Amino acid sequence: MALVLDKARAARKASIGLSSLGSDVKNRALLHIATDIEENIEEILDANGVDLAEAERLVSQGRLSNALYDRLKLSSDKVRGIVESLRSVASLEDPVGRVLSKTELDMGLELSKVTVPIGVIGAVFESRPDVVPQISSLCLKSGNAVLMKGGSEAAHSNRMLYGLIKEASEGEGVPEGWIQLLETREEVSEMLNLDEYISLLVPRGSNQFVKYIQNHTRIPVLGHAAGVCHVYVDKDADLKIAKDIVLDAKCQYPAVCNAMETLMVHEEIAGEFLDLIKDPLFSAGVDLKGDRKACNIIEKANEACEEDWSREYNDLVLNVKVVSGVEEAVERINRYGSGHTDAIITENKEAADYFIRSVDSSSVMWNASTRFSDGFRYGLGAEVGISTSRIHARGPVGLEGLVIYKWILHGHGHVVADYVGRNAKKFTHKELV
Amino acid sequence: MALVLDKARAARKASIGLSSLGSDVKNRALLHIATDIEENIEEILDANGVDLAEAERLVSQGRLSNALYDRLKLSSDKVRGIVESLRSVASLEDPVGRVLSKTELDMGLELSKVTVPIGVIGAVFESRPDVVPQISSLCLKSGNAVLMKGGSEAAHSNRMLYGLIKEASEGEGVPEGWIQLLETREEVSEMLNLDEYISLLVPRGSNQFVKYIQNHTRIPVLGHAAGVCHVYVDKDADLKIAKDIVLDAKCQYPAVCNAMETLMVHEEIAGEFLDLIKDPLFSAGVDLKGDRKACNIIEKANEACEEDWSREYNDLVLNVKVVSGVEEAVERINRYGSGHTDAIITENKEAADYFIRSVDSSSVMWNASTRFSDGFRYGLGAEVGISTSRIHARGPVGLEGLVIYKWILHGHGHVVADYVGRNAKKFTHKELV
Repeated sequence: MALVLDKARAARKASIGLSSLGSDVKNRALLHIATDIEENIEEILDANGVDLAEAERLVSQGRLSNALYDRLKLSSDKVRGIVESLRSVASLEDPVGRVLSKTELDMGLELSKVTVPIGVIGAVFESRPDVVPQISSLCLKSGNAVLMKGGSEAAHSNRMLYGLIKEASEGEGVPEGWIQLLETREEVSEMLNLDEYISLLVPRGSNQFVKYIQNHTRIPVLGHAAGVCHVYVDKDADLKIAKDIVLDAKCQYPAVCNAMETLMVHEEIAGEFLDLIKDPLFSAGVDLKGDRKACNIIEKANEACEEDWSREYNDLVLNVKVVSGVEEAVERINRYGSGHTDAIITENKEAADYFIRSVDSSSVMWNASTRFSDGFRYGLGAEVGISTSRIHARGPVGLEGLVIYKWILHGHGHVVADYVGRNAKKFTHKELV
Repeated sequence: MALVLDKARAARKASIGLSSLGSDVKNRALLHIATDIEENIEEILDANGVDLAEAERLVSQGRLSNALYDRLKLSSDKVRGIVESLRSVASLEDPVGRVLSKTELDMGLELSKVTVPIGVIGAVFESRPDVVPQISSLCLKSGNAVLMKGGSEAAHSNRMLYGLIKEASEGEGVPEGWIQLLETREEVSEMLNLDEYISLLVPRGSNQFVKYIQNHTRIPVLGHAAGVCHVYVDKDADLKIAKDIVLDAKCQYPAVCNAMETLMVHEEIAGEFLDLIKDPLFSAGVDLKGDRKACNIIEKANEACEEDWSREYNDLVLNVKVVSGVEEAVERINRYGSGHTDAIITENKEAADYFIRSVDSSSVMWNASTRFSDGFRYGLGAEVGISTSRIHARGPVGLEGLVIYKWILHGHGHVVADYVGRNAKKFTHKELV
């Protein structure tokens, strides 16, 4: 039981030195990790092979899905992808040490607000071993120590990658103990209680998995449990645009959190638009569930039940609802949605403005597909995750989600007593940056 | 039991409309509240009188401290202070709707990151009725709905102020239900479970009180449980500056969180500096507790025990420790401190840089008093609180601590399918703002 506590303490201790490590050291460490992984592809694939052998057994017994098996499997191409992404993290701007503001409080008394790392991050994820280098490189770049627990199916792969990362980074001067590997569920349970040492959790995995984490810790969680995304096609929509976006949002990659789960159509154009879209959707293999009105238009659709409206299918299934207008669409999004990403298709600026203002989601799209909601597409350089939390960071989160700031006040013997009471000196509060 | 849930639901509903309310409406409401409070001073003082009568009884029975009684007591001056601060909140810049960034993802596809309110704030505080207009004005200005629970000793005062605020603001078009008053401890317990509706808690009160809140909810808490602030006097300090700052940090207002609790002195100058500072400290009525070395220099000091080093006295008591240098000082601050505010006094830039980099606190002072750590002095316009959390907002927090952002993507029929695979279009990721 003491083991995780020791790891957390070691990480906390390392995080102090890591927080002020120069960009040059961090980047050299990232490049060194990249090279070491590149030079050890065979050893990595061997370790992965041990995991795969065990996984095959589980698949044959029906205890592991083929999808999970695929995600577990590394290839030399995948490893080269890891190497490339490590190098690209090295080339990103350092998020630490940015001066967010600088104010003269009075002559000779200057206040700066400067970004610093959060401290210790807890990363918990399932199956995929490529998350180990990904998360650890983002933590290192942002000056954070990290405790990570990957899927037990990937134990050998994770251990191998962890070892390479630890050795290469510490060899370049990154404080010893900055990266810690946890291997059992019990260790995760223990970690969830260590709010004294761990300041942010980044879980990656299924809805149930993220929800479990959220419900069993007081440590803030950066992530999202569900992506129940909507597209609303307004009466003033360009129906060609609407068709393209609906097909993209549902079919381009249905297994992901920013894919559409519910389509809403304004009643005035419902007949025309659903007639237009139903065959392309059926051809793409989409199963349609509708409300009464939608089912009257689309004969092959089944009636949706109440639970369906808040369901994340992550699959070729789509709810269709005919609504009276943008107000009802907004009201339903805020009721049934998950605050992830929702879109309006309209040429009417007023309707769009109302939608953008009133939809309470981390990303709101106007005449664009929900599928754009993603750190890479948003140009964030790297994605730590997508957050549906309402504090700290929202939507696709880049490296800036792993930093906070510190206030630094530099005076020349300034005391508060001079600024109170009679003859009190006045603050100048002059913005310098 | 259902009551608090109903209040939270009503607040959540109001928060949607409130989030897009124009600055003009919010400011008119704030000014209307100010006028109504100004015109009802007598009624407010009458209501406060009822609370005071009951409080006097409790004081005479030894069940309420004189300090709490003083904080409970309103006067026409205090009410006029409230009115003034409401008008000053109206004059602040609206924190909502600020464009944090704008990026062209591709031709005709523009991404904006715009500040929005957090949603529903839970405010819990003790005794002082002036917190009701203060917190509600900050929430209103930042577009947040609020559930608030004040001290039960102030029930009549709080109810009167709440009624005036609700009526004046809703009369100006602020969505009904945006402000909700809770009156019992049971209601607070219930509120702490409503993480589905409430996105941030702002507790104000004693250490135990804030700690209780932190330990009994999954809702993020903006605040600080303790302020164990240090001043380290380096061997290269200007001792005149050191003396002024030590006296200010300890004696100017010892009851507050940014007052110093522990003084550390470099061993090379400990004799000289402690000789210089001890009499002024004793004259100010400060009780000194030291380590062995400090006690050898200051005869009248008592020896400190291990617990003292992490104690927040909020009183004229000071720990004194002789240290070997800046490294030990930093190490002790990170071990015994509360991450609030810590200062170094030195003319040596290298020592100062090391201290600033390595002290893991929300505010770090160089040759300035810890007492400057405050939203007003930092020029934030208004102070929501001081946070020792490591995400979202840290140190003195202004209105910007009550907002988050939303991503808005405006396209012209853009779909992700065009940006993947062969012949994929490339993102431009051009910074526009």
